[in-house]
Amino acid sequence: MEPKPASASSVTMTQIVLPFHTNVAGNMHGGEVMKLMDSAAGVVAQRHSLCNVVTASVTNLSFLEPIFLGDLVICNAELRYAGKSSMEVFVCVKAENLSRGEIKPVVEGYFFMVALDRNGRPASVPPLKLENEEQKRQFEEAQERINYMKKQRS
Amino acid sequence: MEPKPASASSVTMTQIVLPFHTNVAGNMHGGEVMKLMDSAAGVVAQRHSLCNVVTASVTNLSFLEPIFLGDLVICNAELRYAGKSSMEVFVCVKAENLSRGEIKPVVEGYFFMVALDRNGRPASVPPLKLENEEQKRQFEEAQERINYMKKQRS
Amino acid sequence: MEPKPASASSVTMTQIVLPFHTNVAGNMHGGEVMKLMDSAAGVVAQRHSLCNVVTASVTNLSFLEPIFLGDLVICNAELRYAGKSSMEVFVCVKAENLSRGEIKPVVEGYFFMVALDRNGRPASVPPLKLENEEQKRQFEEAQERINYMKKQRS
Amino acid sequence: MEPKPASASSVTMTQIVLPFHTNVAGNMHGGEVMKLMDSAAGVVAQRHSLCNVVTASVTNLSFLEPIFLGDLVICNAELRYAGKSSMEVFVCVKAENLSRGEIKPVVEGYFFMVALDRNGRPASVPPLKLENEEQKRQFEEAQERINYMKKQRS
Amino acid sequence: MEPKPASASSVTMTQIVLPFHTNVAGNMHGGEVMKLMDSAAGVVAQRHSLCNVVTASVTNLSFLEPIFLGDLVICNAELRYAGKSSMEVFVCVKAENLSRGEIKPVVEGYFFMVALDRNGRPASVPPLKLENEEQKRQFEEAQERINYMKKQRS
Amino acid sequence: MEPKPASASSVTMTQIVLPFHTNVAGNMHGGEVMKLMDSAAGVVAQRHSLCNVVTASVTNLSFLEPIFLGDLVICNAELRYAGKSSMEVFVCVKAENLSRGEIKPVVEGYFFMVALDRNGRPASVPPLKLENEEQKRQFEEAQERINYMKKQRS
Repeated sequence: MEPKPASASSVTMTQIVLPFHTNVAGNMHGGEVMKLMDSAAGVVAQRHSLCNVVTASVTNLSFLEPIFLGDLVICNAELRYAGKSSMEVFVCVKAENLSRGEIKPVVEGYFFMVALDRNGRPASVPPLKLENEEQKRQFEEAQERINYMKKQRS
Repeated sequence: MEPKPASASSVTMTQIVLPFHTNVAGNMHGGEVMKLMDSAAGVVAQRHSLCNVVTASVTNLSFLEPIFLGDLVICNAELRYAGKSSMEVFVCVKAENLSRGEIKPVVEGYFFMVALDRNGRPASVPPLKLENEEQKRQFEEAQERINYMKKQRS
Repeated sequence: MEPKPASASSVTMTQIVLPFHTNVAGNMHGGEVMKLMDSAAGVVAQRHSLCNVVTASVTNLSFLEPIFLGDLVICNAELRYAGKSSMEVFVCVKAENLSRGEIKPVVEGYFFMVALDRNGRPASVPPLKLENEEQKRQFEEAQERINYMKKQRS
Repeated sequence: MEPKPASASSVTMTQIVLPFHTNVAGNMHGGEVMKLMDSAAGVVAQRHSLCNVVTASVTNLSFLEPIFLGDLVICNAELRYAGKSSMEVFVCVKAENLSRGEIKPVVEGYFFMVALDRNGRPASVPPLKLENEEQKRQFEEAQERINYMKKQRS
Repeated sequence: MEPKPASASSVTMTQIVLPFHTNVAGNMHGGEVMKLMDSAAGVVAQRHSLCNVVTASVTNLSFLEPIFLGDLVICNAELRYAGKSSMEVFVCVKAENLSRGEIKPVVEGYFFMVALDRNGRPASVPPLKLENEEQKRQFEEAQERINYMKKQRS
Repeated sequence: MEPKPASASSVTMTQIVLPFHTNVAGNMHGGEVMKLMDSAAGVVAQRHSLCNVVTASVTNLSFLEPIFLGDLVICNAELRYAGKSSMEVFVCVKAENLSRGEIKPVVEGYFFMVALDRNGRPASVPPLKLENEEQKRQFEEAQERINYMKKQRS
């Protein structure tokens, strides 16, 4: 398969925080943020592989700041690694206060996704075309995270 | 107030169509699409005015194609007109089939928004800076739509 | 097909505004109102045609007053026009403050619906039986709106 | 307080069954039906008392038939009894198959409501004006149900 | 079929009260509580019968105290009666205030469930193995409730 | 503060997978699982600290098996580590197929929580009373994970 660059699959998903999405404190529920991030990771993995995908693991997900009712949540997801049938997606969430016009990073984390064929078995995915030094470094860091996860599980 | 261009407030909101969003036929519920469009129009009007805003009217909203379960819905909203305290936002929705990588326009419409101050009264908004001939034409078309709406109501 | 009067398909849908339905300001989300109106228009068109129906367009939808948390939302929908396979439904929403017993109109708009057969192609619908002068006038106004919409799109 | 007839507070609430409302079998979730019935009972009790109200108990709630995806659910609620600060509301739900135009009763039950003042204490409610023999009989039956409930609890 | 004790099918379902679940007063919506109770009753009946089940009726459901935003809702459901193809489940809900560590009973009621085979017809269920005097008494009380319900309906 | 054992704060939260919770493939949405896990972790941290808590990070979250529509999701959360104002909660999710009576582990992960006082600043939490060798080992593993996370972030 033809290698594809990260730019071909990256996505920005956005959402206004409504009362529907809030927790008991009135801020965006952490679970709702993770749900949005998981969707964005899924879009990236589907666009890269043109397959069905499932989330295999999530790691190093950090909540940096609370997200408030009425904020515009801006969720960027970008491919960092592609293996034989797996992909790692970095998801970074920012919150925009619409009445002050201020944006700040609020959550980030890594989603490890697996492509599946029609029988639910791992499917091959295109290699990730690394276009600069930073992408190469990020690819290696992803491999380390994946190895760390594997070691932890066994 | 300093005029602001449309590019300073335009937004793209995106969402995956989940079973939660579907109608009886299993496609995205028209009401859910309108809810997403209304949110996007609100973001544009808030970004332009830095005020609270309410939707005053919606017009010429056309459903061109059904949106299917699993599609990525991409909703672009852009300011077309700004008056004393009102704004018109054009909202255009596309749907991307993620396993085929195809995108097509599915819904579009015009949202007429009013900015409000803290007492709930109309607030002044910055003029829209028109940057090219197309934007000037769109501004005039917006004025015609607004006049037509006013005439219809009386 | 036998003509059917508007009274045979009109519907009233009602709903209490819960926190689930609110926007950032704590009032009913405009998108939730439109979702309710779209459902009501769909019921009228389904009852008139006894077919599956889809919303083709929405126009002249005006938000007259905010709808508050706890209000009873009363949404009336009534057939105004029937063509070969299309129908126009007028939807008018009132809000009742249950502790004061006051009702006021809050939103109204026109939904243009198309009946579909089992293969997703336009299906014939019964003519609308016009029973008085007002209904005749409303039928003509609907035709004007439809022509205006068509002209706008081309 | 002036007695008020049941007709002054009765309400019909309606809803389309969307995938959002379904259970694992794909029919309307029993809990969603009870939620709709509870809302309707609340509207009747609020209209009669012009107070905040809470549900104190529910009894003899019978599910007669399943409610299917796409059905129009028609929920009628009517005051049957008013005491010092309590009220009993009969709620009867019908389902309309919109493509066949058939309606059938699906659920019914009795909701016992209490009116509360601003401090959360029981508030006086107007007497129920009984307008015919059937309403008198229903009033007595309600009293029996209430007595039965009280005896059960002690 | 082998008799099964109540302990083999009893379940505890728990949920945090989020803004999503609240009514106009900001407490847990009575309908949401009933939805949770109905789910728990369904789990018990499914576990006992290993069949699909439907709720046939609900009775003597009492709301003892309001449930507040942020409370942990603890819903216990336990089989009290099993007939040829029907089962009665007692559902008892407690609310825990997590910052004070206090728990109190808030709602309780009886759900009468019917097991269905693949064709939607009543299916045989295992007898309930009564293990002590209290369970025998509860079984008899359940029979009285069921007889009372039958008499009421005719 | 008095040390508290893990058993004093552990919780089991359960939920039936409804169409509302499903993803495009019809299984439980990964984001919904994470939302449930996040709630359970929050309950444990609140019970241990009797404070408001926020999720600071999530790590080593592994999806082992899909969770199907209709499954009973059983989510256990248990304190593994308590520092000055932070706590680590292990959350382990099982899915029960109710018609076959089979249970299997489906997701697990670690949630790092911080207790907050009324001004939103870190609040002291009781030490975790370690009651056996396994809990001591788990406490040390938690410390390693926390150190790894800190190193990753810098």
